[in-house]
Amino acid sequence: MIKLVLVRHGESTWNKENRFTGWTDVDLSDKGIEEAHTGGRALKEQGFTFDIAFTSVLKRAIRTLWIVLDKMDLMWIPVEKSWRLNERHYGALQGLNKAETAVKFGEEQVKIWRRSYDIQPPALEKSDPRFPGKDPRYQDLVDKDLPLTECLKDTVARFLPYWHQTIAPTIQSGKKVLIAAHGNSLRALVKYLDNVSDEEIVGLNIPTGIPLVYELDQSLKPLQHYYIGDEETVKKAMEAVANQGKAKK
Amino acid sequence: MIKLVLVRHGESTWNKENRFTGWTDVDLSDKGIEEAHTGGRALKEQGFTFDIAFTSVLKRAIRTLWIVLDKMDLMWIPVEKSWRLNERHYGALQGLNKAETAVKFGEEQVKIWRRSYDIQPPALEKSDPRFPGKDPRYQDLVDKDLPLTECLKDTVARFLPYWHQTIAPTIQSGKKVLIAAHGNSLRALVKYLDNVSDEEIVGLNIPTGIPLVYELDQSLKPLQHYYIGDEETVKKAMEAVANQGKAKK
Repeated sequence: MIKLVLVRHGESTWNKENRFTGWTDVDLSDKGIEEAHTGGRALKEQGFTFDIAFTSVLKRAIRTLWIVLDKMDLMWIPVEKSWRLNERHYGALQGLNKAETAVKFGEEQVKIWRRSYDIQPPALEKSDPRFPGKDPRYQDLVDKDLPLTECLKDTVARFLPYWHQTIAPTIQSGKKVLIAAHGNSLRALVKYLDNVSDEEIVGLNIPTGIPLVYELDQSLKPLQHYYIGDEETVKKAMEAVANQGKAKK
Repeated sequence: MIKLVLVRHGESTWNKENRFTGWTDVDLSDKGIEEAHTGGRALKEQGFTFDIAFTSVLKRAIRTLWIVLDKMDLMWIPVEKSWRLNERHYGALQGLNKAETAVKFGEEQVKIWRRSYDIQPPALEKSDPRFPGKDPRYQDLVDKDLPLTECLKDTVARFLPYWHQTIAPTIQSGKKVLIAAHGNSLRALVKYLDNVSDEEIVGLNIPTGIPLVYELDQSLKPLQHYYIGDEETVKKAMEAVANQGKAKK
């Protein structure tokens, strides 16, 4: 039986300010750092270990991973970083806070962009300083891979090739894998693994900083999943996830 | 013209206690952490950037690299870790402090082990808990690559294949490379680049935490090298290195 562990990064400085972040490379807040410590400690206490880790090219995920690896005394394992594990690109909304966005576009419209699977927020212009083509970390990407905006469907589409070509073969080669990533890139993975519908996936929020274990069979079909942490943390995480289901109905 | 930057990790907790460290995975001391911050800040201030970094599988080098990348806002670049960049393996001396070693083996003998190019310290037994074959991070190494002890000549011999097969081709592909490593793995590199004799290399100490820039031509022949830091730091580093030369004569 295979165990794949996912960690969603904790609070960032822009979560705190309630801004649309996307590919903006903001750091963890002090609370986010503490969440990563708690997650790493929990994995260590429960005897987990890893052979390799995957993360995005955004520092809030990388720092979460670094803290977890440090806590687990696994700083030496290989780490692969890919833009395909990045957060969903939020287009022209990136950098705006909720109030600004509501004024500019109307609250109903914002709700649609946040809750729909396949409706993209307004796109960036290529001349916009926020366009990823202006950032050296994306210099090797071909033009069609540089997003101007993304709906969740787009995030799923650019994440899955990395799963199929890189992460899944690594797991099947017998390596114990940790993925430290973002709300929407992890949604993309969970949608694929659990075959979640387009409608349901937009309402599924993976708790931050609490390691999520997927037990998989040899063909990488999920057998079960559960959270790692102290009793109270796990209970809270499970309740939060259960309530999401209820709220949707 | 190519710039290759080397950083030797700063003080570790065992440097402080004056123990032979080798492959023992001890962490940086507070002073070592501060040295890494200073080095990273200096590189940033002088406008350096990197496309990829190489380091060992030992946390004092990895943490040094992490701090430098964090300071430079380059956490996203690929990092490759290899045991071939590890510190020299100090055999059965690992863990002993200078006083213990002098009592056990005599001061003259210890001096020979420290100062000679090709005389190995006493070897570990394979049953010794310090034998690298017992550490999961070396599980993929073939038997002949697992050291029981090393003289500097051995360190050079296991470092050079990594230089020729991995680092040098990366540099020649046009990538800007940073190497964060150890006193003896960096000696191995400097010996090769500058064609330093076996006798002279054992007396050459690269200052800790001060980035060392090698300017190379297209065939990777050194044109010149210099340290990066504030005026006083660079002056001290150069004087220290110059005095090593004098002390040897």
